Amino acid sequence: MSGSTLGELFRVTNFGESHGPAIGCVIDGCPPGLELSEADIQPELDRRRPGTSRHVTQRQEADRVQILSGVYEGRTTGTPIALLIPNTDQRSKDYGNLLDTFRPGHADYAYWRKYGLRDPRGGGRSSARTTASTVAAGAVARKWLKERHGCTFTGWMSALGEIEIPFEDERHIGANDFFAANTRDIPRLEAYMDALRKAGDSCGARIEVRARGVPAGLGEPLYDRLDADIAHAMMGLNAVKGVEIGAGFACVAQRGSEHGDELTPEGFASNHAGGVLGGISTGQEIVVRLAIKPTSSIRIARASIDRAGQPTTVETHGRHDPCVGIRATPIAEALLALVVMDHVLRQRAQCGDVELPIPPIPAARPAGA
Amino acid sequence: MSGSTLGELFRVTNFGESHGPAIGCVIDGCPPGLELSEADIQPELDRRRPGTSRHVTQRQEADRVQILSGVYEGRTTGTPIALLIPNTDQRSKDYGNLLDTFRPGHADYAYWRKYGLRDPRGGGRSSARTTASTVAAGAVARKWLKERHGCTFTGWMSALGEIEIPFEDERHIGANDFFAANTRDIPRLEAYMDALRKAGDSCGARIEVRARGVPAGLGEPLYDRLDADIAHAMMGLNAVKGVEIGAGFACVAQRGSEHGDELTPEGFASNHAGGVLGGISTGQEIVVRLAIKPTSSIRIARASIDRAGQPTTVETHGRHDPCVGIRATPIAEALLALVVMDHVLRQRAQCGDVELPIPPIPAARPAGA
Amino acid sequence: MSGSTLGELFRVTNFGESHGPAIGCVIDGCPPGLELSEADIQPELDRRRPGTSRHVTQRQEADRVQILSGVYEGRTTGTPIALLIPNTDQRSKDYGNLLDTFRPGHADYAYWRKYGLRDPRGGGRSSARTTASTVAAGAVARKWLKERHGCTFTGWMSALGEIEIPFEDERHIGANDFFAANTRDIPRLEAYMDALRKAGDSCGARIEVRARGVPAGLGEPLYDRLDADIAHAMMGLNAVKGVEIGAGFACVAQRGSEHGDELTPEGFASNHAGGVLGGISTGQEIVVRLAIKPTSSIRIARASIDRAGQPTTVETHGRHDPCVGIRATPIAEALLALVVMDHVLRQRAQCGDVELPIPPIPAARPAGA
Amino acid sequence: MSGSTLGELFRVTNFGESHGPAIGCVIDGCPPGLELSEADIQPELDRRRPGTSRHVTQRQEADRVQILSGVYEGRTTGTPIALLIPNTDQRSKDYGNLLDTFRPGHADYAYWRKYGLRDPRGGGRSSARTTASTVAAGAVARKWLKERHGCTFTGWMSALGEIEIPFEDERHIGANDFFAANTRDIPRLEAYMDALRKAGDSCGARIEVRARGVPAGLGEPLYDRLDADIAHAMMGLNAVKGVEIGAGFACVAQRGSEHGDELTPEGFASNHAGGVLGGISTGQEIVVRLAIKPTSSIRIARASIDRAGQPTTVETHGRHDPCVGIRATPIAEALLALVVMDHVLRQRAQCGDVELPIPPIPAARPAGA
Repeated sequence: MSGSTLGELFRVTNFGESHGPAIGCVIDGCPPGLELSEADIQPELDRRRPGTSRHVTQRQEADRVQILSGVYEGRTTGTPIALLIPNTDQRSKDYGNLLDTFRPGHADYAYWRKYGLRDPRGGGRSSARTTASTVAAGAVARKWLKERHGCTFTGWMSALGEIEIPFEDERHIGANDFFAANTRDIPRLEAYMDALRKAGDSCGARIEVRARGVPAGLGEPLYDRLDADIAHAMMGLNAVKGVEIGAGFACVAQRGSEHGDELTPEGFASNHAGGVLGGISTGQEIVVRLAIKPTSSIRIARASIDRAGQPTTVETHGRHDPCVGIRATPIAEALLALVVMDHVLRQRAQCGDVELPIPPIPAARPAGA
Repeated sequence: MSGSTLGELFRVTNFGESHGPAIGCVIDGCPPGLELSEADIQPELDRRRPGTSRHVTQRQEADRVQILSGVYEGRTTGTPIALLIPNTDQRSKDYGNLLDTFRPGHADYAYWRKYGLRDPRGGGRSSARTTASTVAAGAVARKWLKERHGCTFTGWMSALGEIEIPFEDERHIGANDFFAANTRDIPRLEAYMDALRKAGDSCGARIEVRARGVPAGLGEPLYDRLDADIAHAMMGLNAVKGVEIGAGFACVAQRGSEHGDELTPEGFASNHAGGVLGGISTGQEIVVRLAIKPTSSIRIARASIDRAGQPTTVETHGRHDPCVGIRATPIAEALLALVVMDHVLRQRAQCGDVELPIPPIPAARPAGA
Repeated sequence: MSGSTLGELFRVTNFGESHGPAIGCVIDGCPPGLELSEADIQPELDRRRPGTSRHVTQRQEADRVQILSGVYEGRTTGTPIALLIPNTDQRSKDYGNLLDTFRPGHADYAYWRKYGLRDPRGGGRSSARTTASTVAAGAVARKWLKERHGCTFTGWMSALGEIEIPFEDERHIGANDFFAANTRDIPRLEAYMDALRKAGDSCGARIEVRARGVPAGLGEPLYDRLDADIAHAMMGLNAVKGVEIGAGFACVAQRGSEHGDELTPEGFASNHAGGVLGGISTGQEIVVRLAIKPTSSIRIARASIDRAGQPTTVETHGRHDPCVGIRATPIAEALLALVVMDHVLRQRAQCGDVELPIPPIPAARPAGA
Repeated sequence: MSGSTLGELFRVTNFGESHGPAIGCVIDGCPPGLELSEADIQPELDRRRPGTSRHVTQRQEADRVQILSGVYEGRTTGTPIALLIPNTDQRSKDYGNLLDTFRPGHADYAYWRKYGLRDPRGGGRSSARTTASTVAAGAVARKWLKERHGCTFTGWMSALGEIEIPFEDERHIGANDFFAANTRDIPRLEAYMDALRKAGDSCGARIEVRARGVPAGLGEPLYDRLDADIAHAMMGLNAVKGVEIGAGFACVAQRGSEHGDELTPEGFASNHAGGVLGGISTGQEIVVRLAIKPTSSIRIARASIDRAGQPTTVETHGRHDPCVGIRATPIAEALLALVVMDHVLRQRAQCGDVELPIPPIPAARPAGA
């Protein structure tokens, strides 16, 4: 049923296909009174935009967002905010044979099995292009969260294919084509990508994203825990195959005496929990990691079948990201912001009048450590 | 807001605390006509039940389930099915000091920050005891899915602490205390747990769970993809810190030419996707892995603060699982079944009349390989 | 899909059949910190209870409610509140022929067409007995709304069959068997009911229910307006065939210059709106009226068909309310309270930090005028 | 919370204000494979369009709808269908004083109390202009329902102010400016409206809307009954103050022996139920009536207050419908279609595989009788 809405109270309904006239979303539930214009949203779209380096798809999309509703005289009115992003670089090439075969690793086969028909133009609805709308909605959430709660969201790439990317400093993230918090290894990453592109192949990536300043108390057990909703949002991002919070899979080999973060009057002494205990935020940094699979659209020929079930081979040309993970960082930040935003509203619905003395529990572990 | 319901169409609303009079759930949306009695549910509860070996909590709970509604003359009527599980082994000990301090790694602090007050008896609502209701609801979904679609759900422990547990054969799973698909390493696991218990510490675990016979076409992009909802359900399980589908985090270091599963007339040639492409099931086995953190309740003294923010130490005695991962396997199976069930109903709502020639795409990779 | 939950944030999930072991509900989303015990709920159940006069069904149900969860040391914890009401007076008579025919005006035929099977015992799920759980949940909402906002909910019968019942004084409501705000006409109502019962027939009723002290600003346009959700709740009550807000159907013949309530510094000058403008509460009294159809279960023989489509006749004996409207008043009050409660939480989620100078706009029209 | 979405499975998310750049909606959950183009939607918009006679607002809006997504090569793909309707006749006049006062009967005061600020241009979000998007979405539902189930939806005006409009023949509905199923009384209606317009006043109306061919079995007790959801949708339409199903308020004075519709092998013998029993459709005609209040925007001066609470007077000039009920008929049809569509999908989710011998139960009462 109709799974194109994210969130319960800050609801983002996403629409559009890769090569239709436009993509966009409707945000329902944004609090009134927030100063908002396209200029607040555009910078986040620009971070995700294709065509900005040789390591990503060469499709040229300006990704100019328009606010169609919900804002009056520069402020949100509390009514739905419709955001529209026209598609400008759709190519009218023949997709005929794509309709008849299924690219390995791609959503082709699954969409066909589900809907019985599909829009093959540029991946249609399964294209990562739809994430632009998510990023736009996330920019609205980020602005509100920053103004009201001082929340910030920062992501970076921590592995590109088999290359681990050491965390050096957040200030480097915007200064390279990979969203790496690193300067030293950038040449190596570039060489790796150049070789990959030449080989017509693709690679995976690991992204880390963190939220700071998130109020304690967010999350709705038993099932809609904060970490559960983060996992839902992140695993729902194209190409993601794994999600970790805090220690993640490393917790399997930890002892309880190591994993459980001690509390001190100055704050938690560590953050193996990744900012969530019992499904509820603790006020520490939220720490999330994503595994992003290699792009399915590659130039190397691969075995497949056609719609009649007969064997065939597929090789995919055209404009594709050789590592979709590269542009995933701003999307992951947006998704984390959307989940936090939704839970801030959920929390104040039920527990808006809870008051208690709050000990100062800062995040003790520095980012990237 | 009220996060105690799992699912959109097959809705499970969970209630109850560890030491209240009863726990239970209400299932709304179960199709009519399913033969159902307590005898269909009880065996799954028995698999999860505490007190069955020395490696788990010694709390004695019969976990006898009662069906209060929704069944007439042995068949579901399509109306809500209320399931009740009385608590019988609540201990009336003094929880006074637990109310004043926060156990490291436990939900104590987060619950207090959220609600301003909390039920401390046995962990209250944050206790893993609440998962018994999830297992009971899962048993209903499993029965329907098996009868209508031949779906089966099988999980096992693949790592206990730092010990990897090789997959040998599924038939071993029920024959040891660890849900291990293994016989050779059981003595080693037992010795490991005995030492851990003696040390008063706890350890993590990794669980793998698979679904077979899941129809192709399940999952609701853009956001409510099948894998996204699986991640939501699994990360919402107590103590889970990581979720993987298919290749999971290993996909980071894979190439596209390796990861993308080729299709042949006889089926997929591999299953790195874990049965989900573009957020939609392909008909292959669904493959999920969970990282479960070490139990927070340990006998070793740890630093904490009290509600006034003053330093203190906490050590937890009483009846606790030294590895909550041991009993997690039937819960993870139940959660996977609940997600699949929900998506079968969602799929037939929107696409119930889609018909297409379906090539036989079996799961090519044997379980555990 | 699973329509047994009322509300978005204060969610009531209702379960149980007329002659099963128990009925009940789970309230998810109740704010923490509310003092609550069975004694707060029982009086409302007692108002709705059967068997209290000769004008209602003679079924004897104590309707004793038990709180199973969500309350610790006399206060709500913010976790689900499960309420259980055992059925004690189920009769084990043979319902065989009821399964084969369809009572005119009753839900028999519709349930059978929907689910393919049904629980015929006392109407099964379609019995008005299920409203006891609604009343119990409403009592929790009423307590919170009264303590936090001073809201009160009062209903009365304004017509019994063709007899209009003039409003005299609210204090009379509890002093007669009809929930009439009247003393003078009670003997007439009693005689009317006695004759009706003797004739084996049934009659309809009109109920008016009002909420006072409801904060301004409740309601979520475009679709989930406060009046829309009130209409949903009320039309969802068994036997209701019409719902009016404020002037209701009388507005058809009004002019705009008459209908639009003028505002003065002392408040609204009238209340044709019934407390809702643009789908949002104004702070005035909420005024709702319900049309309740005559009971379908009557002793008079009526034409019907059996499951094979063959003609037959049906007459219904047993214990039935000759006017289901008589016991509808406390249910309607509960439903109105549940809708208001839900919208208070929804309002504070999105607009919880809106502050504005609020002119004193009291309800100008006295109750019943 | 975010009430701009109608429906659970066929979800319509509405956005836009009266004088913003555009209005529109996103339909999520439409089954794939439906042939659809703008030409299927435009005729319904044209029926609701302003400026078509002297009896409605003179605002000139072409109301040209564009499909932005969800359709590929003329067929729905199962992904969200975004519909955009540009606003073309916004007037840039000064709304300054409207911001400072509250028009009696209008949503001004309530919106201000809820959101703290509001878009005053043409009523902003509270304008009936937003219903154009509802009508557009309804056209999609109507097409699918007609093709798959043969459902049709027909409405007419049955009273204009104090004038009852006898039902003569459905074929007249499109032949006059009032959606009246009548020819004889049209001159009288025109004279009435001319006098009203001259007086600067407005009047109410009563609309009847019916659905034929609706499958039996739709509706989700306990709370989301079909009639409950119809009441929600209808009462959520601007200016509606009352909703009736079947006999409606007339049922109050009926006896059970009269109201309960008898069944015969040839079908129901009457339709006092209005096609819904126990909250579930019976296969008979669905019969709904709406009370629509007089337009609040009138030229007659009325008392009000300003935002400081000081007394003032308001008279509203500009382009307004003197009877909003006139254009309500196609909107009510659309809403009824949307509710039925949603419940068809809900029904097949839970009960999609119920099979039973179905006696032919036609609608016995002819339309309008």
